[in-house]
Amino acid sequence: MFGVRTKQPLLLNFLKMTNLSRKLGILGGGQLARMLSVAAAQLGIKTHIFAPENDSPAFDVCYERTIAHYYDFAALEQFAKSVDVVTFEFENVPKSTLEHIQNASVTILPCANALSITQDRVFEKTFIAGLGLKTAPFADIRNLSDLEAALAQIGTPAILKTRRMGYDGKGQAKILALSEAASAWQAIEEQPAVLEGFVRFEREISVIAARNINGDVATYDVCENEHRNHILSRTIVPAYISPHTVQLAREAALKIIAALDYVGVLAVEMFVVGQNADEHLVMNEIAPRVHNSGHWTIEGAQTSQFEQHVRAVMGLPLGSTQVRGAIDMRNLLGQDMHQVPELLAMPDAHLHIYGKLDAKIDRKMGHVTFIR
Amino acid sequence: MFGVRTKQPLLLNFLKMTNLSRKLGILGGGQLARMLSVAAAQLGIKTHIFAPENDSPAFDVCYERTIAHYYDFAALEQFAKSVDVVTFEFENVPKSTLEHIQNASVTILPCANALSITQDRVFEKTFIAGLGLKTAPFADIRNLSDLEAALAQIGTPAILKTRRMGYDGKGQAKILALSEAASAWQAIEEQPAVLEGFVRFEREISVIAARNINGDVATYDVCENEHRNHILSRTIVPAYISPHTVQLAREAALKIIAALDYVGVLAVEMFVVGQNADEHLVMNEIAPRVHNSGHWTIEGAQTSQFEQHVRAVMGLPLGSTQVRGAIDMRNLLGQDMHQVPELLAMPDAHLHIYGKLDAKIDRKMGHVTFIR
Repeated sequence: MFGVRTKQPLLLNFLKMTNLSRKLGILGGGQLARMLSVAAAQLGIKTHIFAPENDSPAFDVCYERTIAHYYDFAALEQFAKSVDVVTFEFENVPKSTLEHIQNASVTILPCANALSITQDRVFEKTFIAGLGLKTAPFADIRNLSDLEAALAQIGTPAILKTRRMGYDGKGQAKILALSEAASAWQAIEEQPAVLEGFVRFEREISVIAARNINGDVATYDVCENEHRNHILSRTIVPAYISPHTVQLAREAALKIIAALDYVGVLAVEMFVVGQNADEHLVMNEIAPRVHNSGHWTIEGAQTSQFEQHVRAVMGLPLGSTQVRGAIDMRNLLGQDMHQVPELLAMPDAHLHIYGKLDAKIDRKMGHVTFIR
Repeated sequence: MFGVRTKQPLLLNFLKMTNLSRKLGILGGGQLARMLSVAAAQLGIKTHIFAPENDSPAFDVCYERTIAHYYDFAALEQFAKSVDVVTFEFENVPKSTLEHIQNASVTILPCANALSITQDRVFEKTFIAGLGLKTAPFADIRNLSDLEAALAQIGTPAILKTRRMGYDGKGQAKILALSEAASAWQAIEEQPAVLEGFVRFEREISVIAARNINGDVATYDVCENEHRNHILSRTIVPAYISPHTVQLAREAALKIIAALDYVGVLAVEMFVVGQNADEHLVMNEIAPRVHNSGHWTIEGAQTSQFEQHVRAVMGLPLGSTQVRGAIDMRNLLGQDMHQVPELLAMPDAHLHIYGKLDAKIDRKMGHVTFIR
């Protein structure tokens, strides 16, 4: 159906044929939705952004916008009816939100099933381990005595994370000794959690993978990531790992994306553990969406992760993931924005500013990609 | 002021400092405005599009839109007050439109003076010739006897063009013999015109040049253009001309942009005449705006012509015009749209679709850029 060599007469309306006249709805209005919307527009696809905040960055570049809460079901229904496909920029879409969109008979991609696994750290780790991929040792924690028992088995240091809703280090408590169990349990507000054994890694990497409706898959070159205060600070490509580890990382991401029956772009964050012949991978987490560590693909790959996601969810063939040089991407947080005048004047800097007005500490305000 | 190495405290609001919190108004809502709007957004700049058509392509990717005629002065005034700088995507902006925007004390860039020259073919050619650059022989035509006298002097074949408002071959009549003077004069509806001697060229090229508020200038690699039915069909970079001619072409464009005291991106279309040692340039026309022959710069240059224009008119430093490979850009007209499924599946095609619903014959619907 797609990518076929065909010479149809104009009457058949090529736009309908290629899905480029269909409208894409996006839940969430942050920078990921903003860059998705631009990518959709470049293919001629109009977007409708649904987000609660008046000044959502994605509103600058969309065809239509709805400002409403994710539990405003009347607004959701109207939104769903106005588009052909709904996707999202964040993994924590409430279940009832997804259900109301499905009631309007609109396709949601990636599908709700993939989300239900990745939204819950226990389900996610169980799923990954079930594929034969290595994770940190982990335990399902429902109360303080679960936590104490798990600590005795897994040992310290360990990290206690809420099962749901955590991101950028939020909802986490590090435990250095068994005696800290109670205070950690209080720190995460006694929510259902997972205890993870600490992984002593050499480096952090991620693989951005894509899968379309036909089941075609693609991965980008492996990204090496540096975090500061749990927030991505820098991504370099290629990652400094062996060709064998590169292959294993790509295969792991493809195993995950296929097992989820996933349509769209996802990122798998992994730890690289051990050196030389001991180098191996430990899966960290799955982000069921376009990912900060893939922003370099806008200029650094033949097809950006944003266009790739749009292609996947709109029923189009995947684009080439060919890299276009050696990449160095830096996030610009609120405290980094004084660098902007200098970056504007640097000949090899591709600067992206998300249009947020308040440059708060640790807020993601933009990014810059260098390609050599 | 720009590009300075500085470490300002956050309080100073870097956004105001760098002009990235200023809003850009764009007159016109076609594909050029659409791509300008995306480029502005990538720098964090919000756009307001003013266009008469409900379904203007640029409306898909702008922060704010006004649907009104260019002579709706109340709407224009409101538009002007909502933005910090106004620019345009087409050269035929009516004088009264410009005046009403200026009355609202808003900066218009490029300035109205440059437009007044390039809007009129007699002024334009006189201006170019005044810089010591070669043009086709031409004469100012106000009536049929002017035309007959000019034909006697310039000879045939020649082309009669209205002084104002022509584009893509509209408002033109080719004259092969003196006896065709009267019918040509009628064909252009007896409007004030210019008669141009026919230039026997080897190829057509264009130079995209930029100049910012500080007077910094830049040119892109010379584009070689193929037209079909007076509409750009294909642009390749580098142009197949000698290094010496490349240098002359870039110098000519820089001479023109400086003499116009121009701020923004413009294109100079030129003919390459003669071969080998005889190779030389004849200036054809100036397009005071981003240009179809520069669409390849989106993926093919370090900074796209659209970002470059935004940088120039917003008081930012110019970006690098470094080319990123060998370029082949093809326009997609209505009759070419059956190729879209095939292009979507080609790994080295960067496809851009403008979101127009009716794929009419000869209507510019999109373009595709190949880079090797």
